Amino acid sequence: MKISARNQIRGRIVEVAKGATTAHVRIDIGGGAIITASITNEAVDELRLREGDDAYAVVKASDVMVAVD
Amino acid sequence: MKISARNQIRGRIVEVAKGATTAHVRIDIGGGAIITASITNEAVDELRLREGDDAYAVVKASDVMVAVD
Amino acid sequence: MKISARNQIRGRIVEVAKGATTAHVRIDIGGGAIITASITNEAVDELRLREGDDAYAVVKASDVMVAVD
Amino acid sequence: MKISARNQIRGRIVEVAKGATTAHVRIDIGGGAIITASITNEAVDELRLREGDDAYAVVKASDVMVAVD
Amino acid sequence: MKISARNQIRGRIVEVAKGATTAHVRIDIGGGAIITASITNEAVDELRLREGDDAYAVVKASDVMVAVD
Amino acid sequence: MKISARNQIRGRIVEVAKGATTAHVRIDIGGGAIITASITNEAVDELRLREGDDAYAVVKASDVMVAVD
Repeated sequence: MKISARNQIRGRIVEVAKGATTAHVRIDIGGGAIITASITNEAVDELRLREGDDAYAVVKASDVMVAVD
Repeated sequence: MKISARNQIRGRIVEVAKGATTAHVRIDIGGGAIITASITNEAVDELRLREGDDAYAVVKASDVMVAVD
Repeated sequence: MKISARNQIRGRIVEVAKGATTAHVRIDIGGGAIITASITNEAVDELRLREGDDAYAVVKASDVMVAVD
Repeated sequence: MKISARNQIRGRIVEVAKGATTAHVRIDIGGGAIITASITNEAVDELRLREGDDAYAVVKASDVMVAVD
Repeated sequence: MKISARNQIRGRIVEVAKGATTAHVRIDIGGGAIITASITNEAVDELRLREGDDAYAVVKASDVMVAVD
Repeated sequence: MKISARNQIRGRIVEVAKGATTAHVRIDIGGGAIITASITNEAVDELRLREGDDAYAVVKASDVMVAVD
């Protein structure tokens, strides 16, 4: 499946923390940057996401803001 | 100003393309990864975003999905 | 590629309208329902989206609201 | 109240699962498709959402992505 | 129609600017604060949004961030 | 840090409610309006958000809808 989301950044899962309904998955994308995703517990189970797995952080362009110092 | 968004990734602006109301800003975050942001033309003007500037791509954790091959 | 987004609804593209930077793609998902997606022109080009093609409308669960009459 | 969101899909609630702060509501929109919404527990209470109720899944066009096989 | 979105802020439309596919609508919510919405041109037409009209800015709680100085 | 998000509304925090992974923060922006933000517990801790603090509700323009009666 190919998806329209402009941002598909490859990395490695470094943490999967499930809550009551919502999980936080942290993906190390290299260069010292870690991306945190807040997704459903169901998605974690269905994709069998585990620490150490390769994964992509996927973000639609309209959900990205720009900041400057 | 400090913001709650979990993802604030430092990089360099490599392209600013304005449309009729919406602009696309591309930020090179290193390691071969470029993040595309779709923001208003107004924001581009107000922050004076230009190619070559340092900038952050900012994304709320609830807007990040996870994908696997 | 498998993605965490909970909503991946199969349908057929009935319209692709490109703007200056942003395109609107309309997908008929059956039962009289049409879903409108606002995505980048780039994504339309890269995925070669055309009227008549099969496609999925993909939505993260945290982007869905519920309404009642 | 009429809202600008382009996607307002009629269906029937088939599950309401509350978590600590976030609930998941699943709406059967027919044709075998079920849409999952992640909303606050407060919204579930205020709208009195219950399994079996008619409801709409509402999604802003800019939150819809397109995927192809 | 009642919607789950936690934030429905009443105000008055002070500007409607249509682009190629995307419009910007600015709503004065009082106290010197103006909220900008980026919505489709279609939605502007369908709801007949015009300067001077009463309107609500509607935002899902998961799309709100918090910042401090 | 200056951010591209068009909506940065000043107010005072009136409630911070943490869940298992997701917190709800309510900000009184005056004129009887309260904005609810759903953010990670981590963000609450990192920004040390507490009832009574001044804070901004920050929303990207593409996440704002418009409704009329």
